[in-house]
Amino acid sequence: MNGAESLLRTFVASGVEACFANPGTSEMHFVAALDRVDGMRAVLCLFEGVVTGAADGYGRMAGKPACTLLHLGPGLGNGFANLHNARRAGTPIVNVVGDHAKFHLQYDAPLTSDVVGLARTCSAWVHVSTNAKSVSADGAKAVLAARGTPGQIATLVLPADTAWDAADGAADALAVPAPPAVADATIDLVAGILKGSRKAAILIRGAGLLADGLEQAGRVAQATGAALLCDTFVPRLQRGAGRVEVSRIPYFAEQIVDFLEGYEELVLVGAQPPVSFFAYPGKPSWCVPEGCRITYLAQPHEDSVGALRSLAAAVGAAAQPTKRAALQRPDLPTGALHQASVGMAIAALLPEGAVLVDEAATSGFAPYGFTSTAAPHDYLGITGGSIGWGLPVAAGAAVACPDRKVVCLHGDGGAMYTLQALWTQAREKLDVVNVIFANRSYAILNIELMRVGAGNGGPKALSMLDIGDPTLDFCKLAEGMGVAASRATTAEAFADQFGEAVRGRGPRVIEVVL
Amino acid sequence: MNGAESLLRTFVASGVEACFANPGTSEMHFVAALDRVDGMRAVLCLFEGVVTGAADGYGRMAGKPACTLLHLGPGLGNGFANLHNARRAGTPIVNVVGDHAKFHLQYDAPLTSDVVGLARTCSAWVHVSTNAKSVSADGAKAVLAARGTPGQIATLVLPADTAWDAADGAADALAVPAPPAVADATIDLVAGILKGSRKAAILIRGAGLLADGLEQAGRVAQATGAALLCDTFVPRLQRGAGRVEVSRIPYFAEQIVDFLEGYEELVLVGAQPPVSFFAYPGKPSWCVPEGCRITYLAQPHEDSVGALRSLAAAVGAAAQPTKRAALQRPDLPTGALHQASVGMAIAALLPEGAVLVDEAATSGFAPYGFTSTAAPHDYLGITGGSIGWGLPVAAGAAVACPDRKVVCLHGDGGAMYTLQALWTQAREKLDVVNVIFANRSYAILNIELMRVGAGNGGPKALSMLDIGDPTLDFCKLAEGMGVAASRATTAEAFADQFGEAVRGRGPRVIEVVL
Repeated sequence: MNGAESLLRTFVASGVEACFANPGTSEMHFVAALDRVDGMRAVLCLFEGVVTGAADGYGRMAGKPACTLLHLGPGLGNGFANLHNARRAGTPIVNVVGDHAKFHLQYDAPLTSDVVGLARTCSAWVHVSTNAKSVSADGAKAVLAARGTPGQIATLVLPADTAWDAADGAADALAVPAPPAVADATIDLVAGILKGSRKAAILIRGAGLLADGLEQAGRVAQATGAALLCDTFVPRLQRGAGRVEVSRIPYFAEQIVDFLEGYEELVLVGAQPPVSFFAYPGKPSWCVPEGCRITYLAQPHEDSVGALRSLAAAVGAAAQPTKRAALQRPDLPTGALHQASVGMAIAALLPEGAVLVDEAATSGFAPYGFTSTAAPHDYLGITGGSIGWGLPVAAGAAVACPDRKVVCLHGDGGAMYTLQALWTQAREKLDVVNVIFANRSYAILNIELMRVGAGNGGPKALSMLDIGDPTLDFCKLAEGMGVAASRATTAEAFADQFGEAVRGRGPRVIEVVL
Repeated sequence: MNGAESLLRTFVASGVEACFANPGTSEMHFVAALDRVDGMRAVLCLFEGVVTGAADGYGRMAGKPACTLLHLGPGLGNGFANLHNARRAGTPIVNVVGDHAKFHLQYDAPLTSDVVGLARTCSAWVHVSTNAKSVSADGAKAVLAARGTPGQIATLVLPADTAWDAADGAADALAVPAPPAVADATIDLVAGILKGSRKAAILIRGAGLLADGLEQAGRVAQATGAALLCDTFVPRLQRGAGRVEVSRIPYFAEQIVDFLEGYEELVLVGAQPPVSFFAYPGKPSWCVPEGCRITYLAQPHEDSVGALRSLAAAVGAAAQPTKRAALQRPDLPTGALHQASVGMAIAALLPEGAVLVDEAATSGFAPYGFTSTAAPHDYLGITGGSIGWGLPVAAGAAVACPDRKVVCLHGDGGAMYTLQALWTQAREKLDVVNVIFANRSYAILNIELMRVGAGNGGPKALSMLDIGDPTLDFCKLAEGMGVAASRATTAEAFADQFGEAVRGRGPRVIEVVL
């Protein structure tokens, strides 16, 4: 057994079952070991941004890490942006970055770069495995680091000779400690605040936004009148019919300020105080109202669901919340195609248990609204704001949840970043419906250009925001990668195509011409 | 005038005339300034790997930097791989990386990341501009840093408020110092070596591989019998009919060792001693024969062309070399389509002054051979070994050289990395013929799997090297981005299609089915 095989066996023993990969020469021993180790699904991606995005989608839905296989510094660099999004989501990911053999690094061969320096910019845990005898133990530690609360990016640099040298065997999985419980005093403090007369909101992120956490939060809200909030971009939110609803904080700074106006108490559950996404001249970045007190019920590393449960008891909440979203399927839309009619059709037809991946950007507001009362589903948001996230995440979520329909809503600008994800969706026969909103523009930038005080923009400036010349044909692009595609220009056509796609199986692209 | 405008005016004053861009909100003031400043061509790319690759192609052909416009850490991360290739080529590039306003960074908003740490991994010069009054001076220094010998990656981080705050005006260009001359003693030392009886080779990189440098090298070679060599992957090489020929060092370690066998003297001109690209178990990384003496005629930062000229005088060379490549256009090929028939057709039809961009990987050997006696042209190689380089570089080279035909030879695996470059080629009506070798495999890895001693590979391993399921349809992919495309399955068809493409104008894709 060589180092690579010992590492792979350790991963499987530690519960890592999927490897998203784009390997090169320095990773060949790891690749060869895939055939000698049962229990690891290997998924090839044509670009590393797809690899890391898929690992993000997988990690969010599986609740445990996939590993990636990346080729030296440039492979990791190509994966940086979606690791950034994953880092912001607290997604567990174990990166394996192949590097030159240790004795080769001194020669500064063409592919040599500062892998460790690069890894530090996108990882919470970085280690270079220098010995085939200990790489399995390193692998177990990497998985442990990734599986903390919240999840983390753990990057293991694997020199080629560490992979090919003889190893002794796999390492045992390391026990993952449960997140620490919140102290009783904190529970009592927050209970006292919420039982007081000041207007209060509870901002939740992480495990608290999944079903059980929402149940507990709903109990608290009902007993105390506190509002339940979530960030604009959430790692994962279980919503739709039967679920306790939370209100999403809006995107723009002044909207956030308006939205939070009047709150005197802000209780944070695995979340941080809301700030604006970008800075604007003369506008505040900090969006918490003046005089509003901030209290942490649970830090991100703590047991936020347990804390919410204890809090519910402390405020004397009923055993169950009674306020939940009621199923409300809109009529199928007719007439003009716009984000509202698309949203209606999706809300009407979304299958129960779907995973809704949202990188629809400016086209996503109406669909988000309509789907709040759709069949219960999981919603994944673009936490790090780096576009080119949705299509790969949809692929990874589908690998994690083979029996659930994945629906990916995507802007056209972002879709062009990591479009290669469609090929992996086709290759792995993943059950994903990709809805591409083709407004042929970086539409958000047309808004932001004025908002930042840069004026209306002359022709050169506006051309930098316009992606309509030439027109992108997403049907051809999808078919070029083996994915069936269709184009909708009316609400009826979209509803027909989307309905057919959700009843069917396998990847599909629908281009929504706006 | 704001900071962004003062920076843009400084760039133009410093000779920077092209900006490859994929901006976001934090770059809106720079974008808006484009309409207020003449002399800067702004080229939108749909992904930052295209931005930095295009800047590499532009810089190699223009001999001066373009600037890039990138959106925070993730934008720079997406550009990392082609900055790596550019760094290895000594290409001058000035990156402008927009970042959050300085007062906004403390809030750790979603897009915040360690921009400086990331920039250091791919740049020789990094600076954060903290003041709108001094950003113009910072810009002048960035251009100066980029324009050294060899060229460098200079990264200027531009906080949004530095861009929008009031500035005083543009800064003057800073004079770029000429590369230092090589000392007479070094010239004499090398002349003595080459006039001796030991078998000698001169390995050249950088300016020495352009026409004048090759002339001087040819004189030296003719007077002394020394062989002229270049690296496997060269930044830029002027070759074809009428040019002094250099022999390319092969790719694999044992081939390099065979190739260099018998040389007793190795003279380096802007080059480093040859090493193997990857490490292999039990094989040497260092490929210089034992006992071969290494002597530097010129370090990469020195005036290598001047040194070659002085050396020619010191060895008493004739005023002109007499040995040059003679034009030899092969007959147009017939029958089966393979890299040899493609190479023959390209060599037969390549227009004079073409720019040949080579990321053909395993399919590039025969075309490289046949084109050695084609019409004179410039050849650009993938110096950093990070795939996904060719299509963007072709776009950038075409922006730099609007009157020259650009021919891009590309493997299918690499083409899928940064295929978005085709859209920019279409948008800017760039005169590029892209030849995609569709062998539907990461073919090099099938060779490397065995060479690294990882065995033949089982089905899972081999599936990681196979990109043929589903089949990529490069015609649909190209047409989806507005580029005319055709597919060739015979030599005749390829010759017809390539001939039509080089006689025409504008971007074109030819899929070569192997």
